[in-house]
Amino acid sequence: MKQKKRIVIVGLGLIGGSLARAFSEYTDSLVTGFDSDPAVLEEALSIGAIQKEADLADLKSADLTYLCLYPGSDIEFVKSHLHAFNPDGIVTDVCGIKTAVCAKLKELSQLGGFTYCGSHPMAGTEKHGFSASQADMFRGASYLIVPCGAPQSAVEILKETAYELGFGRAIITTPEHHDAMIAFTSQIPHALACAYVMSPCCPQHRGFSAGSYRDVSRVANINEVLWSELFLDNAEPLQTELNTLIRNLSTIRDAIAAKDQPKLESLLRQGRLVKEELGE
Amino acid sequence: MKQKKRIVIVGLGLIGGSLARAFSEYTDSLVTGFDSDPAVLEEALSIGAIQKEADLADLKSADLTYLCLYPGSDIEFVKSHLHAFNPDGIVTDVCGIKTAVCAKLKELSQLGGFTYCGSHPMAGTEKHGFSASQADMFRGASYLIVPCGAPQSAVEILKETAYELGFGRAIITTPEHHDAMIAFTSQIPHALACAYVMSPCCPQHRGFSAGSYRDVSRVANINEVLWSELFLDNAEPLQTELNTLIRNLSTIRDAIAAKDQPKLESLLRQGRLVKEELGE
Repeated sequence: MKQKKRIVIVGLGLIGGSLARAFSEYTDSLVTGFDSDPAVLEEALSIGAIQKEADLADLKSADLTYLCLYPGSDIEFVKSHLHAFNPDGIVTDVCGIKTAVCAKLKELSQLGGFTYCGSHPMAGTEKHGFSASQADMFRGASYLIVPCGAPQSAVEILKETAYELGFGRAIITTPEHHDAMIAFTSQIPHALACAYVMSPCCPQHRGFSAGSYRDVSRVANINEVLWSELFLDNAEPLQTELNTLIRNLSTIRDAIAAKDQPKLESLLRQGRLVKEELGE
Repeated sequence: MKQKKRIVIVGLGLIGGSLARAFSEYTDSLVTGFDSDPAVLEEALSIGAIQKEADLADLKSADLTYLCLYPGSDIEFVKSHLHAFNPDGIVTDVCGIKTAVCAKLKELSQLGGFTYCGSHPMAGTEKHGFSASQADMFRGASYLIVPCGAPQSAVEILKETAYELGFGRAIITTPEHHDAMIAFTSQIPHALACAYVMSPCCPQHRGFSAGSYRDVSRVANINEVLWSELFLDNAEPLQTELNTLIRNLSTIRDAIAAKDQPKLESLLRQGRLVKEELGE
């Protein structure tokens, strides 16, 4: 009889909790979890997201360990458990930025003698914590794998596992390309949402707003501690994208100030053409 | 027997087409329409959105006339039909900006001897044209009424009619307040979406993006001719909002450049608190 895969989730927040639920619902694995909050562990146990609280023996025998804390706390966890991981298992993290985190985790994995392969499940919501986690969180989403020198066999296992959890595709990339893209696709919308709702008009928007207000402002409901860490760990690519956005907004503003209709039409047309070429 | 309300829609685009469909589906009115495109008229007739193509006799006997062209074309239409409107009916427009348009239409209504009351149905999609119109477009949306001195009875009729069409609420406001709010709630998201997708990263976003990319970029699929006109007709409030947004984005960027985590957390927290206080 094939043995059940042994999964350890470190941190049962939005992403860790969703991974636990998805593993328990869609695979035949033994899922255990660490969390600093006893109430979260209790809830995760009671709904069957984990089968038991994880201990050091679970960590030592885990086929797959998912680090789902904030970036700095993932690194701290690995440092304080350096020799506790399974040398035949795979350790991955789910951090939204990779260059800074992967370099440190890779180095620690060499010291600790285990296999590390970075990843980033491209899913989430504007809510956070275990209570917002869902087994279907990853349905159709991208799973980004950042091997950082991990053996191909480890990459393949993470990829196959991702499909079992419902991900729609797995993409293999470098930490640097990952971070440049994420600055644009994810960090800018979050910075933007906060900058947008800071307008003095925002508190009076009711009745004057519709879908476009709702869409741009949605992720302003941010976890500022986590996102500050993610922004600062990806400072250079994010500054590049912020400067690009500020420059593009300024160009539009200047065309309006100059009442230059042909210029304004040409700028807005650029936006439309990008979307059309992408078939969106 | 109570006579059917006579409705004339001038311009069967996204909003005019949706009004025609909603009137035909949800009210017992005689709906007629003008459009410069014979194919659109034919389609609107064939699906029953209008009962016939509108002519001057319809305009002269209309209880309600909705001007649904672009702002400048609405004004041109009224100028060229100055004495063709029903002196006992109500003429309204659906323009997304009001100060510039209402002043001109109000003046023309006095010359032409008919009642004008401005309005703005707060609904739409990133698509355009009659083919994208829907009877349910206004379900639950806000209907903004900008009376500009119209008699209370006209305001009441437009309000009651809005509820018949499915709107969720009607709000009465001034052109100036309308335009300041719309610059924030609607025009900024559109300018922003275009500025955002102009990033060199955008064409490669696939696989690296999720909900927040989709939400911010959605309305970049813009009708640049209409929106340039709307932006320039609302240049001052829009510049104010663009400057506010650029300033807020720059403050966030500067905190990142300075690696100032407490400052960055405090900026992002502001965003979250605005949303929380609004219960969003």
